[in-house]
Amino acid sequence: MLESLKEQVMLANQELQRQQLVIYTWGNVSGIDRARGLVVIKPSGVAYEDLTPDKMVVLDLEGNVVEGSLRPSSDTPTHLELYRQFPSIGGVVHTHSKWATIWAQAGQGIPCRGTTHADYFYGEIPCTRPLTEEEVESGYELNTGRVIVGRFQEMDYQAVPAVLVAEHGPFTWGKDCHEAVHNSVVLEQVAEMAFFTRLLTGHDRPISGHVLEKHYQRKHGPAAYYGQN
Amino acid sequence: MLESLKEQVMLANQELQRQQLVIYTWGNVSGIDRARGLVVIKPSGVAYEDLTPDKMVVLDLEGNVVEGSLRPSSDTPTHLELYRQFPSIGGVVHTHSKWATIWAQAGQGIPCRGTTHADYFYGEIPCTRPLTEEEVESGYELNTGRVIVGRFQEMDYQAVPAVLVAEHGPFTWGKDCHEAVHNSVVLEQVAEMAFFTRLLTGHDRPISGHVLEKHYQRKHGPAAYYGQN
Amino acid sequence: MLESLKEQVMLANQELQRQQLVIYTWGNVSGIDRARGLVVIKPSGVAYEDLTPDKMVVLDLEGNVVEGSLRPSSDTPTHLELYRQFPSIGGVVHTHSKWATIWAQAGQGIPCRGTTHADYFYGEIPCTRPLTEEEVESGYELNTGRVIVGRFQEMDYQAVPAVLVAEHGPFTWGKDCHEAVHNSVVLEQVAEMAFFTRLLTGHDRPISGHVLEKHYQRKHGPAAYYGQN
Amino acid sequence: MLESLKEQVMLANQELQRQQLVIYTWGNVSGIDRARGLVVIKPSGVAYEDLTPDKMVVLDLEGNVVEGSLRPSSDTPTHLELYRQFPSIGGVVHTHSKWATIWAQAGQGIPCRGTTHADYFYGEIPCTRPLTEEEVESGYELNTGRVIVGRFQEMDYQAVPAVLVAEHGPFTWGKDCHEAVHNSVVLEQVAEMAFFTRLLTGHDRPISGHVLEKHYQRKHGPAAYYGQN
Repeated sequence: MLESLKEQVMLANQELQRQQLVIYTWGNVSGIDRARGLVVIKPSGVAYEDLTPDKMVVLDLEGNVVEGSLRPSSDTPTHLELYRQFPSIGGVVHTHSKWATIWAQAGQGIPCRGTTHADYFYGEIPCTRPLTEEEVESGYELNTGRVIVGRFQEMDYQAVPAVLVAEHGPFTWGKDCHEAVHNSVVLEQVAEMAFFTRLLTGHDRPISGHVLEKHYQRKHGPAAYYGQN
Repeated sequence: MLESLKEQVMLANQELQRQQLVIYTWGNVSGIDRARGLVVIKPSGVAYEDLTPDKMVVLDLEGNVVEGSLRPSSDTPTHLELYRQFPSIGGVVHTHSKWATIWAQAGQGIPCRGTTHADYFYGEIPCTRPLTEEEVESGYELNTGRVIVGRFQEMDYQAVPAVLVAEHGPFTWGKDCHEAVHNSVVLEQVAEMAFFTRLLTGHDRPISGHVLEKHYQRKHGPAAYYGQN
Repeated sequence: MLESLKEQVMLANQELQRQQLVIYTWGNVSGIDRARGLVVIKPSGVAYEDLTPDKMVVLDLEGNVVEGSLRPSSDTPTHLELYRQFPSIGGVVHTHSKWATIWAQAGQGIPCRGTTHADYFYGEIPCTRPLTEEEVESGYELNTGRVIVGRFQEMDYQAVPAVLVAEHGPFTWGKDCHEAVHNSVVLEQVAEMAFFTRLLTGHDRPISGHVLEKHYQRKHGPAAYYGQN
Repeated sequence: MLESLKEQVMLANQELQRQQLVIYTWGNVSGIDRARGLVVIKPSGVAYEDLTPDKMVVLDLEGNVVEGSLRPSSDTPTHLELYRQFPSIGGVVHTHSKWATIWAQAGQGIPCRGTTHADYFYGEIPCTRPLTEEEVESGYELNTGRVIVGRFQEMDYQAVPAVLVAEHGPFTWGKDCHEAVHNSVVLEQVAEMAFFTRLLTGHDRPISGHVLEKHYQRKHGPAAYYGQN
């Protein structure tokens, strides 16, 4: 079942390695078939080069394995919570990519320092609060998802398709698994540039609101004019 | 028409990727045929590996598309303004290359810290002022060009073939599109070295005027003796 | 003798180069056959691409060469001391990998700033004290091993399979030579991220104890659930 | 004439590019035949991939071209001064490699922060004083050589085969052109690690004298025991 989605999710996982966002097995991508309510995700601890479509794991949104003989990524409950609470997303990515992880380890959101950031993320990429001892000890991965969702309570998850989990690393999402990986790549770039912009200026002040608005809207707004029709 | 220029501009765009100045579609190169007053530029949002000469867009200096079925780069009005105001240039490049963008995001010009910089740029690479709300809301890309030109009012654009647009990123130019790309590569190198030289010294003091003079002139002056005749 | 181990140790040495942990001949890997009490190690100063299984040197735990016509790595006495004192390890690696060496040169241990670190190392990666003049002048390499072992007197070498030798660089170990190399790769990643996390925060405070516990145990504890069975 | 040396010097120049010490034509290597008093050097401004043995330029120690139709590197007078004053060297390299150039631009020598440095350079890699206006205006490249030699008046050029020219970049040397390139590669590594060690510690204090002594001597001293016989 879901042969096409399994292949897409497999390719998106392998793309993490090609984009140098991961070493060893340090990241995972999933994709969802919204019509059937089924999620396809990487098996846990399997090398990217050893992945095949039939090694991908299929689960329902409650986490029951529907197909696949391997154990799904240990971060699966986080992915599922995001699919349940962010109804328009089609793909989720988790990595430990260097610069995004550095900001996450610092517990600081990534300010929008330039148009590169504004082209993809409508403002600061937020960092969650650290999880409490209780949240870590029981249902850790599910609670990671809940803390992310809580962070977006007054934010638009579609306009800022990325988050940093404090002490941990980034998650990104998108309309499908490929866009989610694309957003992980961009996140890494803007995280690095924001880091060194901070070093150069000694502050984290974001760009003007009108530049943010302009760049975000010319790519994503109703009158977008970037790219071909 | 302009088959040779279209091929050159296509190759120069692909060179951006080979030189690791861009990811995805984050940069664009144009070239001009001064005799005919026609500019060739990359189509908007098309992957570098998918470019072919016939996908390049030909425009006149007022921005009318003369040939090509694709939409030109969204930054086209900036390129055109530079061609109109800087009469000796033959190629223009825009990227979001990492280190140049970091200085642009900081709103700071790149001081000339050494002979590597002096070999190509006769002094500081300037950063523009940020665009005002009015300049952004209407005619944004054209105004970007105007703000660049304004920044060079008392500078020689031929002696410093690069600029940083505040909150955004770099533009470079040259006698043709290949030299413009070459200058983008060099800009990225000197931007990075100036950054870390600042960190080491705690200041941005430029090199001695006589060393700047010597290195710039031995490559670009009337008695240049670098390279072969 | 030990043909399989010699091949494994050779491959693990070459892996150092592929992982960009070394240039020229700046690192060495060894492995031990515990049943026979014999160690296989890289010959000194031989390029990785010139290694063959029969160039590897076999020694007993007292440092007597049992097989091989080349001189063993000059760091051999350090490796042997680790094998003698850390009875469960099967492989040892020494490199001058950039970020781990930077922390070693600073004489500072690498704090656990995030889950990437906690997934492999149960807390701070310690830095030894500098060797005294006497320790350097006579039996330098053996004393390097002794100073490492001394640093672990109140630590569990199995839970933190890496150390920095002050003024010098890192050593890592593992259940075999491949795991030891794997730990060197991870060490380099966490060293770099901890460095820049320090720059961003201005401090070295470790992550919460419960997150450290959770991540270390979900990969290494008795109820580990990362990966496949 | 000097066919073998011309090939060696050509290969050493191309090695600069393979080791990522240069882009475009930003570096040059020379070698000397001491018996004949003739120097072979890269032609000025020629791409590394276009070099052939017969494009190399042969000069005597006074700078007269003995063979070759191309103009020699503009830095030739610096190379020649080093050969005249440092009688035991057989090869010279000049690059604008990133980290060495950053220290040169800062006008600061590179302190010996660890054994990686001590394995090759017996103490700090010095930075020259800036050249005066008079030294720059007339005989610039020769005066660069003289300022380097002046910096070594009370130092052993054989024990520290590298220097930084203030506001400019590094020169290295060795017993032949390949060793000189090797030293340029190592210089770049230690320059980078010293930079970040400074950031971590806030100071430039060198390693203990006995560790410096030990590491330098075990590779270069009369009783060296690193490598094979």
